[in-house]
Amino acid sequence: MSMRMRHTMSAAGIALGALLAIPVAFAADDPLPAWNEGASKQAIIDFVTAVTTEGGPDFVAVDDRIATFDNDGTLWSEQPMYVQLAFALDEIRAMAPDHPEWKDTEPFKSVLAGDLAGVAATGKDGLEQIIAVTHAGMTTDRFEDTVSAWIATARNARTDRLNTEMIFAPMVEVIDYLKANDFDVYIVSGGGVEFMRPWTEKTYGIAPGNVVGSSIGLKYEVTDAGPVLMREADVDFIDDGPGKPVGIQKFVGKRPIAAFGNSDGDYQMLQWTTTGPGRRLGMIVHHDDAAREFAYDRESHFGKLDKAMDAAPKEGWHLISMKDDWKRIFPGD
Amino acid sequence: MSMRMRHTMSAAGIALGALLAIPVAFAADDPLPAWNEGASKQAIIDFVTAVTTEGGPDFVAVDDRIATFDNDGTLWSEQPMYVQLAFALDEIRAMAPDHPEWKDTEPFKSVLAGDLAGVAATGKDGLEQIIAVTHAGMTTDRFEDTVSAWIATARNARTDRLNTEMIFAPMVEVIDYLKANDFDVYIVSGGGVEFMRPWTEKTYGIAPGNVVGSSIGLKYEVTDAGPVLMREADVDFIDDGPGKPVGIQKFVGKRPIAAFGNSDGDYQMLQWTTTGPGRRLGMIVHHDDAAREFAYDRESHFGKLDKAMDAAPKEGWHLISMKDDWKRIFPGD
Repeated sequence: MSMRMRHTMSAAGIALGALLAIPVAFAADDPLPAWNEGASKQAIIDFVTAVTTEGGPDFVAVDDRIATFDNDGTLWSEQPMYVQLAFALDEIRAMAPDHPEWKDTEPFKSVLAGDLAGVAATGKDGLEQIIAVTHAGMTTDRFEDTVSAWIATARNARTDRLNTEMIFAPMVEVIDYLKANDFDVYIVSGGGVEFMRPWTEKTYGIAPGNVVGSSIGLKYEVTDAGPVLMREADVDFIDDGPGKPVGIQKFVGKRPIAAFGNSDGDYQMLQWTTTGPGRRLGMIVHHDDAAREFAYDRESHFGKLDKAMDAAPKEGWHLISMKDDWKRIFPGD
Repeated sequence: MSMRMRHTMSAAGIALGALLAIPVAFAADDPLPAWNEGASKQAIIDFVTAVTTEGGPDFVAVDDRIATFDNDGTLWSEQPMYVQLAFALDEIRAMAPDHPEWKDTEPFKSVLAGDLAGVAATGKDGLEQIIAVTHAGMTTDRFEDTVSAWIATARNARTDRLNTEMIFAPMVEVIDYLKANDFDVYIVSGGGVEFMRPWTEKTYGIAPGNVVGSSIGLKYEVTDAGPVLMREADVDFIDDGPGKPVGIQKFVGKRPIAAFGNSDGDYQMLQWTTTGPGRRLGMIVHHDDAAREFAYDRESHFGKLDKAMDAAPKEGWHLISMKDDWKRIFPGD
């Protein structure tokens, strides 16, 4: 529905409501239609109303309306494994014919055998080797093309849906609602910034310049075919845990007033956001819906939510129950 | 003049022009009134017209309209020394009473004696010590307050004007003109990102998230008074020379289609910008106006322009003559 149509219907609704003397609450006016009525939805609407009410005690100037969202597990599914990890494993499988030696070398041997526990057992060294062959040693343009081609076809191992179809419709509504209220919305993810940028604009409406993430080194080189940016194997920045407030300061330069996460990796981002002066909002997506998505928290390998769940009541962070708070999970539902 | 008034005058102008059959060129329609008519002004207008003409061969979608500006010497004066260096020296003078040992210790001894050559002679070590005491060992909030207080009163040593009054009015017009044509405009400076962010929005209309610059380390710490970001003495990123395309990729995530610089430190940013596919614009501010600002290029300590000036004709970069191209230099002129 266009903004114009919505506006017209809204005006008609108010007139009708006045005529019948009943409360006006048409679906067309609801900024969060995928949310069930309840404390979580109300917390979002109350917050946005408070900080945008000019002359009110909680008013925040447009320039300071910064909101940050974690990505994995907050905006899209991170089970049965992080999407970026699935990408790396797929790339290794695709490259394997040119690397016969991988059959006998870890971590590649475990990757090719589909043995995730074996990959995990190779630890930090193994992960660095996986990053080196799948994420580095190529230009930024080449990597962007590779990610774009992969994301267009790669499907979740358990649901067989495209990963970009496994985004959370209620959270995209929150992004749109905040943007409609003049918020500057950023993704702040532990995932690789260049892995996200090729598709965040189309998928969430978030431009590459508003994506903060982990990064590896880049080197400017002038080749015969012109200048390129080469991706190097060294880790440049880890945008996770205490790295998230650092990443926000580096890339945004302002302290957010609202933050959304789902795991202990978001603890410091939520803390940094909600301990600032004035009205603040911190929310945690709790994956408690095994039937429609996945159910996990304290014991999960991906998106472990333990310390942040314990801190939530004390810190005033709202737990979003996917099961109870969301009418729909995915856009296609 | 409001956009509305300008629009009304413009409509009247066209009607009058049609009536008298003369070319319509009212000042109110001129997006660059501080520029003299000539090749530089025309290059900017031609470029913007070309990339915004829908259906034209050079049309660029709004999402890809990225423009980057160097700061020192491109948007404001960098003589007789970089403004950030003046800030550091002022801070050392202010802190000196608490550090009697500085009278006998370099680089502080030379700073306090006003001996710039002596400071320069202390080299990289000296510079690092100056950064450590003036830019690190404090929270980001404290540094922001310090910069804000200093910039509100600090004056150029030669002209006695506020530094923020020594911005180049014609360049601010270019920023506004690009923004009015849906460009996303970034500052990409060798200067410290946190030194610029406190005043770029008010001074140039460029938000903190659109400022790319050099940075030192940040560390997230939880104190009794709440969480803080501590500034650490180690250099994190140098946004100069080949670092500029790297900084652009890190912070913007897209290749610019227009870039503006004034020194060899902007060489690679101009090269990265103008060697991309499609219509591109690269421009260099040439400081050739000793009467109204400063005249320097190949031999200058600050903003040396040598290699990039030689490359300009071959690369198609336009040299902007401050003397010939600009009607006014500073907003107060």
